[in-house]
Amino acid sequence: MQKRTVLITGSTSGIGLAIAKAFAQEGYNLIFNGLETDGAQTAAAVAEEYQIAHLFDPANMLHPEALRTLVMRAEQRFGCIDILINNAGIQHVSPIEDFPEEKWDAILGVNLSSAFHLTKAVWPAMKQQRFGRIITIASAHGLVASEFKSAYVAAKHGVVGFTKTIALEGAPYGITANAICPGYVRTALVDKQLADQAATHHLSEDEVAEKVLLAKQAIKQFIPTESIAAMCLFLATEKAATLTGAALSIDGGWSAQ
Amino acid sequence: MQKRTVLITGSTSGIGLAIAKAFAQEGYNLIFNGLETDGAQTAAAVAEEYQIAHLFDPANMLHPEALRTLVMRAEQRFGCIDILINNAGIQHVSPIEDFPEEKWDAILGVNLSSAFHLTKAVWPAMKQQRFGRIITIASAHGLVASEFKSAYVAAKHGVVGFTKTIALEGAPYGITANAICPGYVRTALVDKQLADQAATHHLSEDEVAEKVLLAKQAIKQFIPTESIAAMCLFLATEKAATLTGAALSIDGGWSAQ
Amino acid sequence: MQKRTVLITGSTSGIGLAIAKAFAQEGYNLIFNGLETDGAQTAAAVAEEYQIAHLFDPANMLHPEALRTLVMRAEQRFGCIDILINNAGIQHVSPIEDFPEEKWDAILGVNLSSAFHLTKAVWPAMKQQRFGRIITIASAHGLVASEFKSAYVAAKHGVVGFTKTIALEGAPYGITANAICPGYVRTALVDKQLADQAATHHLSEDEVAEKVLLAKQAIKQFIPTESIAAMCLFLATEKAATLTGAALSIDGGWSAQ
Amino acid sequence: MQKRTVLITGSTSGIGLAIAKAFAQEGYNLIFNGLETDGAQTAAAVAEEYQIAHLFDPANMLHPEALRTLVMRAEQRFGCIDILINNAGIQHVSPIEDFPEEKWDAILGVNLSSAFHLTKAVWPAMKQQRFGRIITIASAHGLVASEFKSAYVAAKHGVVGFTKTIALEGAPYGITANAICPGYVRTALVDKQLADQAATHHLSEDEVAEKVLLAKQAIKQFIPTESIAAMCLFLATEKAATLTGAALSIDGGWSAQ
Repeated sequence: MQKRTVLITGSTSGIGLAIAKAFAQEGYNLIFNGLETDGAQTAAAVAEEYQIAHLFDPANMLHPEALRTLVMRAEQRFGCIDILINNAGIQHVSPIEDFPEEKWDAILGVNLSSAFHLTKAVWPAMKQQRFGRIITIASAHGLVASEFKSAYVAAKHGVVGFTKTIALEGAPYGITANAICPGYVRTALVDKQLADQAATHHLSEDEVAEKVLLAKQAIKQFIPTESIAAMCLFLATEKAATLTGAALSIDGGWSAQ
Repeated sequence: MQKRTVLITGSTSGIGLAIAKAFAQEGYNLIFNGLETDGAQTAAAVAEEYQIAHLFDPANMLHPEALRTLVMRAEQRFGCIDILINNAGIQHVSPIEDFPEEKWDAILGVNLSSAFHLTKAVWPAMKQQRFGRIITIASAHGLVASEFKSAYVAAKHGVVGFTKTIALEGAPYGITANAICPGYVRTALVDKQLADQAATHHLSEDEVAEKVLLAKQAIKQFIPTESIAAMCLFLATEKAATLTGAALSIDGGWSAQ
Repeated sequence: MQKRTVLITGSTSGIGLAIAKAFAQEGYNLIFNGLETDGAQTAAAVAEEYQIAHLFDPANMLHPEALRTLVMRAEQRFGCIDILINNAGIQHVSPIEDFPEEKWDAILGVNLSSAFHLTKAVWPAMKQQRFGRIITIASAHGLVASEFKSAYVAAKHGVVGFTKTIALEGAPYGITANAICPGYVRTALVDKQLADQAATHHLSEDEVAEKVLLAKQAIKQFIPTESIAAMCLFLATEKAATLTGAALSIDGGWSAQ
Repeated sequence: MQKRTVLITGSTSGIGLAIAKAFAQEGYNLIFNGLETDGAQTAAAVAEEYQIAHLFDPANMLHPEALRTLVMRAEQRFGCIDILINNAGIQHVSPIEDFPEEKWDAILGVNLSSAFHLTKAVWPAMKQQRFGRIITIASAHGLVASEFKSAYVAAKHGVVGFTKTIALEGAPYGITANAICPGYVRTALVDKQLADQAATHHLSEDEVAEKVLLAKQAIKQFIPTESIAAMCLFLATEKAATLTGAALSIDGGWSAQ
């Protein structure tokens, strides 16, 4: 079979990079994306290590035009994006009364609207070939809430709803759409939250980890990026052809209680 | 007891107007809002019929500054908005591949972000007086999806997530936040959907009502606006002081199956 | 209109008694039920206070034959049970490895199977008259779990599923079915849990209340029985005719996080 | 590493057999179970094909004592059951008013209570070794309902609740618990439902497949047993160590709408 092509947003660090490596190991063509200044090098290093074809594009999730260009470039190079993984995300922690308007807009833009723009852009080719996978890295916050995260929780719930809709629309065309809802993963984003919440709650960062971040997880460990990557790989296979519209929790028991 | 004050967005027609009348009947002060050209007259007529104090403000949900001004005017007049009912909503039906970007942005703006801006604006006074009610008229689409409604389903899921967050933040201050998730209500919005979906599905409007809109409801009747208004009234009472963070379905059995 | 008749299981104490009083105040005919030795007197006192017609039957929820007899007696007296409120419930707290088999069976019997037997028994008359209300007092544990309550959580989730099914089956006949999912209510059952969990967790009862029972609620207050009763009254009305198959949380923000 | 041992109930046909083959292929020790008269031969044939150690035990899910004996035999042979897969299930389709009491009891017994008895029995050894996996094959009916299946929907919702509780209790001990919620799988059970519902709805079996069974799935295909088996294999790995308390849908978009 021809190699499949996967586009992963925010894939030059954190969860996205772990997913990228997992797909690289399986020989997929990879389109990397990220705002890190060394993103191109990170992407090239992964591509070289696993001997895969790749593309790097630093499209900003807030710029729909850049997202369309990213997809066009990728399709010109690889023919079709078979798998779209909406992973890029940002966070801001603040009580509602002080929550900056521009942070609200940015979080909705990156965590929710970018999934719309990219899905719309990759759709015609997926529909044409009657195969596609839309995978969104949502969050436990796509199902339940935490205080001081109004924008993030709204955006993550929103993208879960978007995923369900797209699953229904893709059903006749071999396109599935699913959300993965992890608990806390130890990434740069969480490191920042540790710092932010430490300030908000007047605790040390270690106390925040145990008492705040992991307080809601029954298993007091951060979610390994490998678990999320493994679920993505499974969703990309033919065996997952009827798995669609789901919000798959990997959250240490968070949403179960 | 001093009369309580309720702000209802989109209250010069449809569900919002029905809610307004129900609160007027109970003697609440009312802040009406809506874009209908005869909105001021509609508001005045209700106020006169029920002999209540009222204000009308045609703030556009897409303009945060107008929303802040609306709240400021209302607070100058009535001291505090005790109950905020986020009801204004718009819809657009289209397959993802043709879904207009500007419709996506407008639907997120009206159905989701306006709830953020208004909640943020009413919050300090509610917190100060240690009483508040944030009620959002979401939709069954805040919990489940239908095809061709990617923006609406995303926005409604999003506002359910927002509601949960606000519920947690309001808990120490006597502020509750809940979403009501109705099935299909026969409003101008639904009349438009009947027309839109008739075109999309190549059916008559009557067939759309029975086979498309109400297909997912076990009870083949539109939800009466009075049911939604009655639930709002209940949520506004002291008896509902511990009812918070809920997504309350009134959907004819839609989301149960 | 002829007075409607409501059967409330476990209505001689706690939540059930509060619901009974609320319906009595509205003039409904009441069928009381409960295992308290002074149940008949409690029922008679309520009936006298509110000047309503009533019946008391001490049917044990574990005895299907007794439940059928209860319904038959009630129908002979009042013609039809218009509203069935499945409220009786028992609890047992224990780690899974020590959980007594007989407690598992009893909890499933009282909290789940009794709803089946009673619904089946009241159904033909409700269907015949094309009006009926099945209301089940489930629990936040009908939606989420707590450790050491395997039987209770299973039974409460089960009865939520049962409710949804019955809602679908009742839709053509004017019969609605809904579950109310309260957080912690200060009843004799909770008093016992305070004692049990104090032993299990090696804490004082006050610490259990704040740190264990109400730990998951954002609002640190027990749910007043009046809230639950008010929701039942609303569900019994014509205004709630299209509200069916719902799990209505009154849980202080528990399941929102 | 020493070979892990998996017990799969109802594994001599249908979904259970498919799961058994998937684990056999990976070299696990297998405990087969089933009521088919040729169950022992089916088990032996799989064991021989994949060259694995195995045990067959025809314990009836309705007999707790037989379940305890099954676990004891397995532990004597293999030391510990590392993975318990609760798969055995029965169904009965009937309107509530005619639903036989003995069917209600049997469905709760097989589909729900057997999971309790088996979990309780395997728990001490799992806890001792600080590793365990409890996987339950629930159903889309563990999350949503269909008419005429009151017992099945109650039992499946119940076992999802049970799973969440066990997930919380197992968290400190390396034991995870998850439910898989498939849509319609073409098994003997579904063949029977096709026949039953054809009678109930007065349709042909083909019409039932398309219009009744798969009506709620967006993807109009039965779920392949291989998908479910692949998810079980993933859950059994170390990579899924923090995936617990989840209800993982594989339902063709059923519960998304």
